[in-house]
Amino acid sequence: MREIVENIFHELQDFKDDAKVADYIPALSKVNPDLYAISVSTLGKENISVGDCSVRFSIQSISKVFALTLVIKNIGDEIWNYVGREPSGTAFNSLIQIELEEGIPRNPFINAGALVVIDRLIDIYNDPYKQILSMVRELSGNSQIDFDGEVAYSEIENSHRNLSLVHLMKDFGNIHNSPDEIIDLYSHCCSLSMSTEELAHSFLFLANGGINPFSETVVCSQRNAKRINALMLTCGLYNESGDFAYRVGLPGKSGVGGGIVAVMPGKLSIAVWSPKLNINGNSSLGIETLERFTTYLGTSVF
Amino acid sequence: MREIVENIFHELQDFKDDAKVADYIPALSKVNPDLYAISVSTLGKENISVGDCSVRFSIQSISKVFALTLVIKNIGDEIWNYVGREPSGTAFNSLIQIELEEGIPRNPFINAGALVVIDRLIDIYNDPYKQILSMVRELSGNSQIDFDGEVAYSEIENSHRNLSLVHLMKDFGNIHNSPDEIIDLYSHCCSLSMSTEELAHSFLFLANGGINPFSETVVCSQRNAKRINALMLTCGLYNESGDFAYRVGLPGKSGVGGGIVAVMPGKLSIAVWSPKLNINGNSSLGIETLERFTTYLGTSVF
Amino acid sequence: MREIVENIFHELQDFKDDAKVADYIPALSKVNPDLYAISVSTLGKENISVGDCSVRFSIQSISKVFALTLVIKNIGDEIWNYVGREPSGTAFNSLIQIELEEGIPRNPFINAGALVVIDRLIDIYNDPYKQILSMVRELSGNSQIDFDGEVAYSEIENSHRNLSLVHLMKDFGNIHNSPDEIIDLYSHCCSLSMSTEELAHSFLFLANGGINPFSETVVCSQRNAKRINALMLTCGLYNESGDFAYRVGLPGKSGVGGGIVAVMPGKLSIAVWSPKLNINGNSSLGIETLERFTTYLGTSVF
Amino acid sequence: MREIVENIFHELQDFKDDAKVADYIPALSKVNPDLYAISVSTLGKENISVGDCSVRFSIQSISKVFALTLVIKNIGDEIWNYVGREPSGTAFNSLIQIELEEGIPRNPFINAGALVVIDRLIDIYNDPYKQILSMVRELSGNSQIDFDGEVAYSEIENSHRNLSLVHLMKDFGNIHNSPDEIIDLYSHCCSLSMSTEELAHSFLFLANGGINPFSETVVCSQRNAKRINALMLTCGLYNESGDFAYRVGLPGKSGVGGGIVAVMPGKLSIAVWSPKLNINGNSSLGIETLERFTTYLGTSVF
Repeated sequence: MREIVENIFHELQDFKDDAKVADYIPALSKVNPDLYAISVSTLGKENISVGDCSVRFSIQSISKVFALTLVIKNIGDEIWNYVGREPSGTAFNSLIQIELEEGIPRNPFINAGALVVIDRLIDIYNDPYKQILSMVRELSGNSQIDFDGEVAYSEIENSHRNLSLVHLMKDFGNIHNSPDEIIDLYSHCCSLSMSTEELAHSFLFLANGGINPFSETVVCSQRNAKRINALMLTCGLYNESGDFAYRVGLPGKSGVGGGIVAVMPGKLSIAVWSPKLNINGNSSLGIETLERFTTYLGTSVF
Repeated sequence: MREIVENIFHELQDFKDDAKVADYIPALSKVNPDLYAISVSTLGKENISVGDCSVRFSIQSISKVFALTLVIKNIGDEIWNYVGREPSGTAFNSLIQIELEEGIPRNPFINAGALVVIDRLIDIYNDPYKQILSMVRELSGNSQIDFDGEVAYSEIENSHRNLSLVHLMKDFGNIHNSPDEIIDLYSHCCSLSMSTEELAHSFLFLANGGINPFSETVVCSQRNAKRINALMLTCGLYNESGDFAYRVGLPGKSGVGGGIVAVMPGKLSIAVWSPKLNINGNSSLGIETLERFTTYLGTSVF
Repeated sequence: MREIVENIFHELQDFKDDAKVADYIPALSKVNPDLYAISVSTLGKENISVGDCSVRFSIQSISKVFALTLVIKNIGDEIWNYVGREPSGTAFNSLIQIELEEGIPRNPFINAGALVVIDRLIDIYNDPYKQILSMVRELSGNSQIDFDGEVAYSEIENSHRNLSLVHLMKDFGNIHNSPDEIIDLYSHCCSLSMSTEELAHSFLFLANGGINPFSETVVCSQRNAKRINALMLTCGLYNESGDFAYRVGLPGKSGVGGGIVAVMPGKLSIAVWSPKLNINGNSSLGIETLERFTTYLGTSVF
Repeated sequence: MREIVENIFHELQDFKDDAKVADYIPALSKVNPDLYAISVSTLGKENISVGDCSVRFSIQSISKVFALTLVIKNIGDEIWNYVGREPSGTAFNSLIQIELEEGIPRNPFINAGALVVIDRLIDIYNDPYKQILSMVRELSGNSQIDFDGEVAYSEIENSHRNLSLVHLMKDFGNIHNSPDEIIDLYSHCCSLSMSTEELAHSFLFLANGGINPFSETVVCSQRNAKRINALMLTCGLYNESGDFAYRVGLPGKSGVGGGIVAVMPGKLSIAVWSPKLNINGNSSLGIETLERFTTYLGTSVF
């Protein structure tokens, strides 16, 4: 496996296409576009990493998986009263579907759905910021992980689209807390700064039936781990989820920081990072890396 | 496994909800709503069947998998110039997406996409009817399988929605042959009459890396088998695909005849049948059966 | 003419359908549903009024005409860089069109368009509240006209839909000022409290080529008066504008307070009021009244 | 008036923009792009014409007014069970609105609506082709007017979009006759070949309360004449109707052959022709001509 990972890393050193670093918030646009990292964590406790695997970056929408896991742990299937579990067929930040379907977002991985999940977290916890942090720290085994204030505030200042979504859903009665409070927590979650090593580590519970393989603690039930994997497979890469399933064949979740995490149930988790995004907002080199990984390994969920 | 299948069958004998037999064409509406069958075929050559497992029914949209497999075998990735591979987020027969995306259907399992696949088949073969039949007969190991003329003609007479889709795509230049020819072949494919035993048998190549386990012939490459599974998982149950992935966790394909086929890669295929459909056009008892199957077995692709 | 007005008033005393008083903000829902008034002002200085013609009510969207007039007077055709002049074909508060057309609302009489107009007013004036008030006071010849604070604040508290529109347009760069500031001025304009007598009076400049017939001052150029009439005719009654043109045949503007004002160029203006709204948010009895008015009079713009 | 017309004609001799002759059917694309004509007919029996005013061209969608008038004359308000009277807000050939609103087109001047009107005509008459012809011949006072077979067949061969509309509406139950029959009559109506002189003549009944001023026969009731004018004003220029009302201020109807007819109720009708179309499918020079006409004349319906 190490050889496969290293081969891919070398093959793709000079990968070039017209992908570009996210520029919708200033704090993200400053990232070095040439950074590239791959980290694999296996249930057999093997850790393989190449490239800039200990450089932390903004995990952005990958945080939606942590938020959903925390909510499901608390209120279980009740969350599905507020958000669906179907692919949206529209862009990650579209208002059209929300208006046509009266305030219920299609799934928890488009922005509107994640904002609903964040709204639920604020209802559940007095200290949701602390809960998210302590969850991510425990999963990654690293107590230094933190929000990136600069990214969070940059995000908050550029949140008109998300505010539009929140106000629309609030108009339909599907949001309980104040829009500003929701945007603040949402933006902080997006700003979580992690390396591919830490991300691979943190997602291993989803390959392990919901159990953190290091601490042996139950993060969520086996059933819910499978379901979160199913949601990642059908909805994890925005409007490119079908293509990702077709090319890579693993449940995965991407973020506009350029990270992608994927899970091979019963075996491993893998995190890749390259900041340059394709037109769907997903790391172009990241998807290419993962496609080669499952092709060379000859294994996917299919 | 036999015990699991029999238990589910008995548990669900009295399953009741507000699902109803398809009534959009007369030929389908006459089916006895209480028929119920489950058939499992494993790579270990085990065959388990309960209920009305040898009664043939109209496989309808399940035929879209056969048509796609036949096209991919012939022109490979070229098919993706004509049709996408993303979940549509809209109803199976919607024109909206086709208009907004200029004649390119989202995936080969919504009607528009399947009509494009059929159009390609007419281009490839002089005798596409014979090719489809011989493929299905070989896969199922039963040379008696045939089109149901009554269903096909009932379908053709009620094909205004599909004709609307074909003409719209032809206007965008994404259809080569005559609309009537396409509707005729499409309707005949939908009218294929098969039992759950035959269907489970026929889909086993997708659990076996593209190789028909009985004849050892290559139906498609391993890569394409995985990709067809990926497409079924993200797009196989119309606008309920995400929910099916969440509840059942297997690639699957449904038809408005009430059949659903699912694949557990490396292990087995399973076909279920109950004619009563939920609001999404999928067999309600069929989905319930499959959800219990993967739950009791403790296995899914996730 | 007096006879016609009085006849209509009596004919429709017992008018009944399933129209209902607006209930989306508490302040509006308390209005007596049986109030009914008609006021006509002619260029020949005749004033005809029947019913509750001096009772003030919330003019709501009728204020959009005042705001547009004030903006056009200041920046002329420049306003059309920010907002279109086509009927929208969608509900007055829809976000769909705004998303598809990248932040440019279809016309100044749907909410999104009016919010853009208000945004321009804030740019133009240090004291836009005062400017609006002084314009309306001058047009109506009544210096007592004022905002209704209770209605305005009720509106502000229930403005999630409008905030969603403003944030979406701000995301597209089509809004300059703060969303809260815009909502505040917008809600105050909507809360303007006027009687049918005052409204008929205030709209007479649009029947008079832009000149206030009482003060002889130029409110806007003749060209712009005609254009504002054209906009009212194609877009003035939300998603019922075509029907209103068909039945009544005059440029008009309605509000969810139950008022409707219409203009017969070169002749007169007419204001009607009945708080019960049809499903399009227009006064049902008001439309019926105006249809009879142009029918009995045998005159419309057509 | 003659002076005004001649001045405009000379001012605009060298009018240039990026408008282009329709190329969607071969028969239309061959027209000389530099042809230009203006014809005015007044109720005072004055006829003013300049330029290529006796050259016949394909009236295309202008024929929708004749078809609607013929239907209304026969079944009156019953037509509104099949088609609405609101601006559509979408392109003239869009399927989206038809799908969302379940087969009922927004108005009789978008393609879908006109196809419904044609379907009704086939129900009403044994010989609808003859009826249309005899109506147009009587209105224009010219018994030579005829369908242009070449244009009609070119149209029929390129009618996939319209067939898509017809089949979609038939699926919703809003079409009675065979799609091919409807497309044939529709295409023949579009192919009617008329000069601006003949068109101005033919529309004069709409300026005259429904009465043909030459023959004194009643074409439709006064009420219906006004209503047809209202429909032209709100829906007559496809997706540019609001703009046309704003700039020109008259009820009008355009066709992709480059003709536009407008009506000044109580006074006159005017037909203009220049084959080059703007992006909305309307004659660019034609609109400019009409805008100057109402501006120089200082009269519009507003």
